[in-house]
Parts: sequence; structure tokens; C-alpha cells
Amino acid sequence: MNAKPILIYDTTLRDGSQGEGVSFSLQDKLNIAERLAEIGIDFIEGGYPLSNEKDVAFFREIKKRDLGQSKVCAFGMTRRKSMQAKDDPGMKALVEAGTPCITLVGKTWDYHATEVLRVTLEENLAMIGESAEFLSRNAELIYDAEHFFDGYHANPEYAIKTLKAAAAGGATWLSLCDTNGGTLPERVSEVTRAAIEALADYNVQIGIHCHNDCELAVANSLAAVDAGATQVQGTINGIGERCGNVDLISMISNLALKKKGFTVLGGRSLKPLTQLSRFVYETANLQWRNSQPFVGQSAFAHKGGMHVHAINKAAKTYEHIDPALIGNERRILVSELSGRSNITALATKHKLEDDRELMDKILAEVVRLENQGYQFENAGASFDLLIKRIAGSYTPHFETIKYRVVAGDRNTEGEASGVFAEAIIKLKVGDALWFDAAEGHGPVNALDAALRKALSDEYPQLAEMRLTDYKVRVVDSGSGTAASIRVNIESTDEHESWGTIGVSENIIEASWNALVDAVEYKLHKSTP
Amino acid sequence: MNAKPILIYDTTLRDGSQGEGVSFSLQDKLNIAERLAEIGIDFIEGGYPLSNEKDVAFFREIKKRDLGQSKVCAFGMTRRKSMQAKDDPGMKALVEAGTPCITLVGKTWDYHATEVLRVTLEENLAMIGESAEFLSRNAELIYDAEHFFDGYHANPEYAIKTLKAAAAGGATWLSLCDTNGGTLPERVSEVTRAAIEALADYNVQIGIHCHNDCELAVANSLAAVDAGATQVQGTINGIGERCGNVDLISMISNLALKKKGFTVLGGRSLKPLTQLSRFVYETANLQWRNSQPFVGQSAFAHKGGMHVHAINKAAKTYEHIDPALIGNERRILVSELSGRSNITALATKHKLEDDRELMDKILAEVVRLENQGYQFENAGASFDLLIKRIAGSYTPHFETIKYRVVAGDRNTEGEASGVFAEAIIKLKVGDALWFDAAEGHGPVNALDAALRKALSDEYPQLAEMRLTDYKVRVVDSGSGTAASIRVNIESTDEHESWGTIGVSENIIEASWNALVDAVEYKLHKSTP
Repeated sequence: MNAKPILIYDTTLRDGSQGEGVSFSLQDKLNIAERLAEIGIDFIEGGYPLSNEKDVAFFREIKKRDLGQSKVCAFGMTRRKSMQAKDDPGMKALVEAGTPCITLVGKTWDYHATEVLRVTLEENLAMIGESAEFLSRNAELIYDAEHFFDGYHANPEYAIKTLKAAAAGGATWLSLCDTNGGTLPERVSEVTRAAIEALADYNVQIGIHCHNDCELAVANSLAAVDAGATQVQGTINGIGERCGNVDLISMISNLALKKKGFTVLGGRSLKPLTQLSRFVYETANLQWRNSQPFVGQSAFAHKGGMHVHAINKAAKTYEHIDPALIGNERRILVSELSGRSNITALATKHKLEDDRELMDKILAEVVRLENQGYQFENAGASFDLLIKRIAGSYTPHFETIKYRVVAGDRNTEGEASGVFAEAIIKLKVGDALWFDAAEGHGPVNALDAALRKALSDEYPQLAEMRLTDYKVRVVDSGSGTAASIRVNIESTDEHESWGTIGVSENIIEASWNALVDAVEYKLHKSTP
Repeated sequence: MNAKPILIYDTTLRDGSQGEGVSFSLQDKLNIAERLAEIGIDFIEGGYPLSNEKDVAFFREIKKRDLGQSKVCAFGMTRRKSMQAKDDPGMKALVEAGTPCITLVGKTWDYHATEVLRVTLEENLAMIGESAEFLSRNAELIYDAEHFFDGYHANPEYAIKTLKAAAAGGATWLSLCDTNGGTLPERVSEVTRAAIEALADYNVQIGIHCHNDCELAVANSLAAVDAGATQVQGTINGIGERCGNVDLISMISNLALKKKGFTVLGGRSLKPLTQLSRFVYETANLQWRNSQPFVGQSAFAHKGGMHVHAINKAAKTYEHIDPALIGNERRILVSELSGRSNITALATKHKLEDDRELMDKILAEVVRLENQGYQFENAGASFDLLIKRIAGSYTPHFETIKYRVVAGDRNTEGEASGVFAEAIIKLKVGDALWFDAAEGHGPVNALDAALRKALSDEYPQLAEMRLTDYKVRVVDSGSGTAASIRVNIESTDEHESWGTIGVSENIIEASWNALVDAVEYKLHKSTP
């Protein structure tokens, strides 16, 4: 039986950009569009030309790039009431964008037509039909039926009329939008079937556009595909307004790897998905979502002695698919729930598993440290150095003689802020003593600056690394301000990112230890 | 038609704690358990007594708290092979936990029995049955069928046998676990029906336990409930291993507000859900997920001219439910009055809602501070003082002239630790100047000690208060060590406990501000 192709329509650059905290520059959009084309996305919705200059520029610039088989779409609304399509600025902007596809959104819900647009139901149909006719003259036309499911619930006959108006006007795709995100899968299935049946005599295919307000966007989109939809609209990583659009990563993965009978992205490999996901996060300056299905850093991360023991025997017993299929990888976490098998997996990576005596020493040390508040899951580099220390292969690149931070507020009375932080450190590098001081926004920032000052002559490669994240956690809540503090630092250079940890009752000491590990890890990597 | 009750089983403290980066102290677990009981969660799985001391302590301590109708469950595995139930340490640990419920997990998948546990299929059935019989003597027994869907796929007859063994042994609940998270909704529906039918002659109810590896945990759990399951196992905010367990927030909301014919939490109001979600994130020291369905800060946040216009006319046109139902609120992102916390509720508490001008000033100040990283949900005392300042009824009991902390390690070479922290402060109390210094375990501990030294002559009532918790949070992750730091302090006297907050790039300044608010709150209370 031939697999049925489901086309993927990406609106990361338009609907996705409406997510809180998301803002793409023109360059960002062009870069993302190229990455989408590389993996074989069928439709790339680039923006809303009527709404802003940046989107107009996007459509101009994107023509200079090779997007393979992917088609760029320009998005816009139906013509204004009491105006002809040819005179409407939105219509003109769409035509001027000169894209192979145009996506036209129109009102489906009778209430929206009469109360929000303030037109009669008939006028709305005319707006849809005339806009469709005008825009489909020189472009493939996709019609987005806004609020389709709510509109169908309120007035099913009218909702179908709006679809027919668009189809009669020349739309070849009718995408049913669950704009409020509140429809349930069984209802999506029923209504999608009804729409397909009602439009049986028209030369159209049906698409689906879901939002995640009930955490059912993926289920709804799959239900629509099962009901006959052949286009899925969504965004990479599910970014978008409110709870986001459907995550195309999940949709592509589910359609290609979990469902039977469908093919996506022209049958291409899904291996680039993980990197694509991270690229979009980085470009949008958003945090990665570790627990994101398929491509999250934790998606195949196993903790808890009970599970890791089994994984070491056969991965399929605890993984529903092979992480490599989407470019992800298995991770074994070290934690307080780790028995011997967690350590084994990490030690395998370090090629130590045959040395039982060493393994026992490492395990004993990990347990000792965990009881003090250490946790090595986000501190793989500190764990790495721990193994080296126990195995005798740790070579410190400098020695801390002393360090102190002075911080506070010198002057709370004047207009200028007296808040300050200074770090003073003394290190030994080889035979030389280095005494340095630095200012900073706060104590840890100052310590980091002082450390780099002291080491950069001897170790210029430190300029390649930067601190990207800093977390502080009190690990014994309930003891007030005398509790143990856990500091996690994330560092990165162009090849990898690594986590280190420090624990102490004194946050300055905890921060210093985490910083030293971060730097030593880099130096161990780069000075063979 | 009567609504069917669906029981909610929370494993935030056990399965949820296996999520990456999640670590709960004993106190954290007790606090969360109480909050779960308050909203009416039916079953609270507290931990795995065989695996660690902290969980044993939990079951001991939780008996001292009033959990209303909620039942605490202790979790454990079937007895070891070649050992009688009564001699098995895991069995004994479960009985010693003394909980009203016990949750027993056993192998369903023939492969797991023979290759992982290395027992015959018959022995596995005996292990299940004998463990169930032993544990159900004095507790309600819930049986978790691990890998049920994969096991049923591999060998359906054997999978059913494992369920029957547990039921015959005395389990009254059989929860079907999609442990790998890879099953699709239609299959969950089919297999759940098959299990219910096969167990028709037994006095059992069926539960469902899903993981989110395909982003279908909610859909799968709903499918199982539609198929006849009457218990849903999950975690608050969906925390848990890999991609997490099903999010009980979404499940409760969907069952109560979206699906027809079901009732949850004994019909209680869902208004506490939003606060509960945030409380669990804060306690786990995890970031809130803004786009989280129902309770996320962005779940009802509207952006984009096209939508806001319509919202102002009629909220239901763009919201699938009223956010107030789950204790969330609508936010209009273009409005200057969008605030993240439930300002209205707090202002109502202070009886200010009739003073519109004052309310506007307070709102404006809150928005300003929130943009800097403040959040008043766990800092009610700081909010209280903020209101007083704006209302003109704040009377500072002392004035900060300056303060500084010196901390670090003086001597990393000797045997004695050179780690130190000293605080030096200068305050004005009335007409007198106080200059004091104190040592501490760390900077904040030292500042607190110095502050008390300086104020205790004039204000002896400060001896009644103590600091009970201290949380630190970086509020602008991604900026390395120059980010804003949010410090939350919890203080208590014999009458109440109160939270205060400080925010700054400099952790010392943030800590000082939170400490000053904590002390001023006490002094405002006690010096009329």
C-alpha cells in the first residue's frame, strides 16, 4: 500500500512570531526559512506583508535564496468591506510580495462576521470569494478558515458556505483552523470529515491548523489527518501565541515514525530535526525545552537505577524509538537514585567499566558528594573531572591560593547607586604567582572576570569560552540562611556546552568551585 | 445524567521527582503533599521507601499532617525472585511505611520478565500474585502494570494474566502504564477496552498512566477514560523522566471543563490550580512554563491587533474557557496594565478595590517591578509593604546607610578551612547610628546576623522571628553571570510566616533588600 504524503506548512515566521518573547529580525527569518527548506518543509509562511515593513523585505530578499522545492507563502486577510479587492491595500501587498503561494484568512464564525467585522453574512461571503478570485490569478491559494470548529458549532451551514466561497474563488487548499485551541480530537475528526464531504465536488484539499490550549494540538492534528486532511500547519517547537501552535517536530516525527501509511518531507531523513529545533530556539533567543518530545535533551535521558539497569541490556525496552532517527541521543543521568548501573553507563563513555575497583571508588565518592548536595546531572564536566581525579589523571592548570569578594552598597543616600562587587584573587600558574582584581555586576560575575584576567596570558584559549547560564539552589530548605547552596554554571565554546557545580554553605565558595571546574574542563580539553 | 467521578492519582513526589533537574527535600515533599490534599487530589504517591531514607522519613512525617480525604500511597516493586514476600526487604519497607494505600509495580512485558528480571513467565506471575496478597492485607492495593501497552502488543494473553494475578491477589485498582510513552490514542482506547473486558469478573477498577514522549499523554489519558478507566495517574506540570508524565493540570481541566459527563476532585473549584502549578515549580526550583495550557502565564495572553480588538468586545470569541475557572487571568500584551500576578485578588485581600486611583498606582508599580524580575506570589509581605508605601502608611523603623560583605577563602593551603563570610553594616535608628559587623556561614547569613545585632536593642521583638527559607533564582537565564538575581526569603514568628523578595544583578543587594523587607514587616506588625 502506498504511503499517503502529508504536506507540512510552517508558520514559525508568522504565527510563531506572535508568541510572547519571540522577535525575529529579517536576517533571522531568512536563516530559518533556509533551514526549513533544507529539511523539505513544503510551505514556508514568511509573514504578513500588510502588517509591517520587515515582512515586505523578507519576501523581497527570500527570492535571492535557493529554497529547493519549498514554496514561500504570504499571509493576509480578506478584503475590507465596501472595497473592491483590486483597491484593497492588503490584497495589493499580497500580490506585490510575488510569492508562489498566498494564504488568505477569512471569517467562518457568523458572530465574528457580524460583531467584529460588522458586515452581513452575505457580504462576508463576497469578501472571501472576491479576495480568493483576485489572489488566485497568479498564485497557489491556501484559504485559512479562522475559528472553523467554533464557527461550525455555532452555524454549520454558514461555515461550509465560507469554505465553498473560497473554493469557488480559486483556493485549492482549505485549512481548518482551531483558532481558540479548545476543540477535542473526536470533534475535530467529526467536523473535518463533514467538511471534506461537503466539499467533495470541489477541487480542493483540506488542511488543519491547531493550537495547544488544551494540550491536544498534536492529537487534534493527527485526528484531522486520519479524517482525510493532507496538510498540517504549525510551527517549529510549537512556538506561538498563548499555548502555541502545534509543534511540527512532534507532527513530523509522529507521522513518519509512529503512524502507519503516511509519508512526510518527501521521505527525507528526519536526522536534522534535533538541530533544527535548537537552531530555532537559539535564533529566537528562547530556552531549549529539555522535556520536549523527540528532540529535547531529556527526551532519551534515563534516571533511576531501576530503568538504567534495563537500558544497558536492550534500548528498545525503554525507548519507543531510536533517538538517532531524529538526530537525538541517549543520555544516562547520575543521581541519588543511581545504583551501579547508572555509573556503569557513564564510565563506559570514559572506558572505565572494566576497572571494578575504580568504579567502586567513583560510586562511593558520588554518593558522598550527593549527600552534601551535589547533583551531577547538569554537571557532566564536574563529573568528568571527578573521574579524572579518582583515576589519577587530573592535572590542575593552576592553584588557588586565596580569593575574596567584597560586595554591597557603599552609599544608599546619594542619587548614584553605591552598589558594587569586587573580586580579588591570588593564583599560582606554574611557578608564577598571579594577583588580580576585577569588578562585576555581582560577586560571581566579578570572580569570573578576575579569574580570566589572571589566566588569560598563560591560557589564551579561555577567550573561546563563555558562561551562558548560572543557577543557584538552596539544597536544604528549612534551615534559613545557613543552608547549603548549590551553584550550577553552564559554559560553552564553539564545540560543546558543559555544566559544572559547586556546593557550600558559602555561596562565594560554591561559585568559585563551579567556576574553577568550568575553566579546568576547558583547559583539560584544549591542552593535551 | 450523573457525572462519573474520575479519581486523580498524583505521583509528582515519586515519578515526577525522576525528572532531570528535579530534587525535592523532605520539607518540599511534605509541603507539596499538603497542597495536593487541599485541592482534593485522591491519591498522593509519596515515594519509594526501599530506595532511600528521605522517602521513609516522608511516610513517617506525613502522618502528622491532616490530608483530609486524600490517601497517601507508598510505591514499590514485586518481591524478588526466589524469596518469599514476607522476607523481601521491599515488601517490608512498604508495610512499614504504614500508608492507607500501596502501589505495586510489576512486569507485564514477557521480554522484561525473562531478559531483565531473568525469571520464567510463571515465576513473574507468582511474584505479582504473592506480593499483591501480602501487601493488600492491610492496605488498599493499586497495581501498576509496567509497559502494559507494549507488553500487550508483544503477548496479549500474558499481559492479561499479569493483571489477573494482581487482581486475584487483592489489588482493587489496575493502572495500565504506557511506560515508554510511545502508544497512540486509538491503540490506548482499544487496549484499555480489552483489559476492562478481560477483567470484567474481578472487583477492580482500571487506571491509566501515560508519558509524553509523543506529545500525546493527555490525549492518551482522555482516550483511556473514554474507554472506561476511572483513575488518572500523572504529575503536576507534567514533570517527570524524559518528556514527563501526563500533566494533571491539563487532565483535571479537560475532564472538568471540556469533556462532558465526568467530575473530578469531588466537584471542588479548580481556582487553586494556577497557584498550585506555580508552587510546585517554585518548590522544585524550575522555571514556570509560560505557554503551559490552562495555567501558564501566556495561556490567556493576547497579542496582535487582530485579536485584541475582538477580545475587548467579547472574551469568548478568543478564549475557549474563562481563565478565572482555573485561577488564571487574561492578559492583553499591548496594555500597560498587564500584570503577571493575581493583583486583583491581592488587592481585594487588602480591601483596596474601591480606591481606583490607589489601585491604578499599585498596578503601575507592580508592572514596573515585574519587568525588573519581581514576582509577588511568594512575597506577600513585600507586596504588603509596597501597598503601604504607595498609600503613604509605610514608616521605616531604620535607615540603611551602607553595608558590605566580604567573603571567600583566605587560605586554601592549610588544613583548616579558610572559607569565611563577614558583613559590616551601618544603620540609623531614630537619631542613633549603629555600626555592626557579624560573621556567618555565608554572605546572607552574615548580613542577617549583623542586622539583628544592630536592631535588637531598639527592637527586642526581633528575637521572636527567624528565617526559615531562602531561595535564589536567576531571572534572566542566558545572560551568564550578569543576569538579575531574585532572592526570596521566608520568615516566621509564632503567629505566621511571611515571604519577602529582593531583585538585583548583585546577589548581595538582592539579599539585603529581602532581609530589610522581612524585618520591616515584623516591625510594622509589632509596633503599632
